[in-house]
Amino acid sequence: MSDATNDSSPSAPSRRRFLAQSGTSAVAAAVGMGGALQASAQVAPAVSAAPASKGLPPNVPAWTRSLGEPTATPYGKPSSHEVAAVRKMYPGLTEPMSAYSVTPLQELDGIITPNGLHYERHHAGVPQIDPAQHRLIIHGLTERELIFTMEEIRQFPSVSRIYFLECSGNPIFVPPYGKTAAEVTGLVSGAQWTGVPLKTLLHHVGLKKGAKWVVAEGADGAAMTRSIPIEKCLDDVLVAFSQNGERLRPEQGYPLRLFVPGYEGNMSIKWLRRLQVTDQPAYSKEETSKYTDLMADGRARKFSFVMEAKSIITSPSGTQKLTRKGSHELRGIAWSGHGKIRSVDVSVDGGRNWQEATLDAPVLSKALTSFRAPFEWNGEELMLMSRAVDETGYVQPTLAQLIAVRGKFSTYHNNAIQPWRVAASGEVTNGRV
Amino acid sequence: MSDATNDSSPSAPSRRRFLAQSGTSAVAAAVGMGGALQASAQVAPAVSAAPASKGLPPNVPAWTRSLGEPTATPYGKPSSHEVAAVRKMYPGLTEPMSAYSVTPLQELDGIITPNGLHYERHHAGVPQIDPAQHRLIIHGLTERELIFTMEEIRQFPSVSRIYFLECSGNPIFVPPYGKTAAEVTGLVSGAQWTGVPLKTLLHHVGLKKGAKWVVAEGADGAAMTRSIPIEKCLDDVLVAFSQNGERLRPEQGYPLRLFVPGYEGNMSIKWLRRLQVTDQPAYSKEETSKYTDLMADGRARKFSFVMEAKSIITSPSGTQKLTRKGSHELRGIAWSGHGKIRSVDVSVDGGRNWQEATLDAPVLSKALTSFRAPFEWNGEELMLMSRAVDETGYVQPTLAQLIAVRGKFSTYHNNAIQPWRVAASGEVTNGRV
Repeated sequence: MSDATNDSSPSAPSRRRFLAQSGTSAVAAAVGMGGALQASAQVAPAVSAAPASKGLPPNVPAWTRSLGEPTATPYGKPSSHEVAAVRKMYPGLTEPMSAYSVTPLQELDGIITPNGLHYERHHAGVPQIDPAQHRLIIHGLTERELIFTMEEIRQFPSVSRIYFLECSGNPIFVPPYGKTAAEVTGLVSGAQWTGVPLKTLLHHVGLKKGAKWVVAEGADGAAMTRSIPIEKCLDDVLVAFSQNGERLRPEQGYPLRLFVPGYEGNMSIKWLRRLQVTDQPAYSKEETSKYTDLMADGRARKFSFVMEAKSIITSPSGTQKLTRKGSHELRGIAWSGHGKIRSVDVSVDGGRNWQEATLDAPVLSKALTSFRAPFEWNGEELMLMSRAVDETGYVQPTLAQLIAVRGKFSTYHNNAIQPWRVAASGEVTNGRV
Repeated sequence: MSDATNDSSPSAPSRRRFLAQSGTSAVAAAVGMGGALQASAQVAPAVSAAPASKGLPPNVPAWTRSLGEPTATPYGKPSSHEVAAVRKMYPGLTEPMSAYSVTPLQELDGIITPNGLHYERHHAGVPQIDPAQHRLIIHGLTERELIFTMEEIRQFPSVSRIYFLECSGNPIFVPPYGKTAAEVTGLVSGAQWTGVPLKTLLHHVGLKKGAKWVVAEGADGAAMTRSIPIEKCLDDVLVAFSQNGERLRPEQGYPLRLFVPGYEGNMSIKWLRRLQVTDQPAYSKEETSKYTDLMADGRARKFSFVMEAKSIITSPSGTQKLTRKGSHELRGIAWSGHGKIRSVDVSVDGGRNWQEATLDAPVLSKALTSFRAPFEWNGEELMLMSRAVDETGYVQPTLAQLIAVRGKFSTYHNNAIQPWRVAASGEVTNGRV
């Protein structure tokens, strides 16, 4: 113990006392279900203490006997041990300029996605924009045609709101289906977005009679262009410059993006350079040849903007494994482009029986919502499912229900219930085959 | 335009049409107050369009004429242009092992601090802990003495909550006072924390009669040790493993920390390795020689745990400058260790007159709350102040009121109103001299 209690130690006295007390008393003991725990929580995992073979931790670990790394890294990074918490390009994608990377949902908790792990979708790569050179043009059916600098944009009143953002192709309808939660539905993330309400800018330039749409264009190499109904633009659309407190990341539209809450991610135009007020939609490539839903009869649904209620169990999920029998907690996230999540039902028997999960506060409109529920596993096969219900009463459908209405080739807007199979071995795999 | 509309461009048709339309129409125009804006927002900044000398933006910026950077950086970083959004060691600190770095509040928006910019306070540097080797010991006045691995901890039911964390020395009472919002009160940050309620673990090990305190010890070189009343431990204390969705950063206690909502940050023991249930406080170095408040009469307040209601204006704030006359928006954050922020009053005349600011949703208990209010500046001197009121009715005091009660040498728990002076030049400086 002398190493640990030399006088140069900043808290030697207290450490001496506590380490002495803990020296021999902190022995491992087998633990079963705690009656007290039953009263205090839904799940009482049969946590088994470390067997002697693993040995007790040293009374003073190596890192307690030395100084650590210095304070004040200008911008911090995750631990080098967190190798799994990274975003990856979707398997099979080979062209990184028009591609997407997924958020590792199965590695994350809560409703906020760290900016470094927010999903990406680019059509011509990530432009490297100098904010001092960037301009936003607002023109068309407006009283004034204006060009704003970033400094001018930031002088308007701004608001901060927690919202989800989801790609409409998350996931597509047809096999191969993903192995992990990230591969199945990792094109969704959550953040607090800060920006100027678009309605403030539209009122500032003045709308002319006949203004029915706003056509937004990005400054990327694809000049990504989408049309947004004027009613939505005068509701909750933001011209956003910050994400989770800091300025947008380059891959999220730095220095300026549109944010269209609850609508398919592709409409939240990144690297926003132009807003043209028009009397009709643009019918741009990204709302005609892409981002429409091909129906069974060969016709295409257009302007299918809203991301409907959806949920996914992230723990346990594909490629994870249950390592012991008894009580467990199932966790996941739910969201709806129509507003708040009202409830989430979960099933362990493939949808024959459902129980209502607990929602973690805060439950916010058009934001990720955390849910959790206890379940028992004693070596039998399980089929885990979650089913979101939003404040409009809309219930998340099964894939069969969705295909009956939309066919198999819609590509976009697949919000079907995701099943996870738990094998007798405890291994968890995608229940969709 | 040929560069911009060659056929290899993924959206040439729409780009051709829109660029043609915008070619000559998007001219700069002088703009004054918009009547429409008056109706839609509190503040109508007199945004002046870019003068001809600055020139119009190119119809097609350079970055729109080329491909950008590839998709899927495994873990993203801020733009290289965001050089100001970094945390710095407090001016004058020379020993990085026992030091602190501050969150650049004046660069941030909203209630979530990016993990890379969360303030740091270390007493022996940042230990580099292997999570597979880390253990949590719970012993003392308990039915069972247990040693938990990280995997075992994560098998218990967990919750996610958005909370602020603040150092009790944020800031000290005596000069020199800081220049920026970060230097004045940058030892506060906000995040969503995920972990197991401590009450769940205490019920699991079983509390013995006479259990009144929990003494928490960290695995850092300082073996940081604090005593927490059992009532708080059975209320909302978390044993936390995630911050803003991802695992804790090393400087925030990776792989495991205590999180004590609303209490001084020092009690949220990082790198948590031991919880000893006792019948009395430890009177450790960090709750005797430090983290007590020296009163004017020479006695010390001990166990002054709760961080009382506080607020700071972050925009405009010290070292910033108002660049034009007319309407502006004042923005800031408020928080209280006692619960929710009820309201924030702001003053532009040094506290003679106050108006109520707008609070941005969500307003959460023991979390940062964003506020904003419009103000006019036409070249006169202003003294900007904000005053938080929490749900208990407690009103944030002036420094004079605080010193009258506590003297000048309390060191900790200075939640005084922060004044910012706006000079005739528009320059903003610390109003406390």
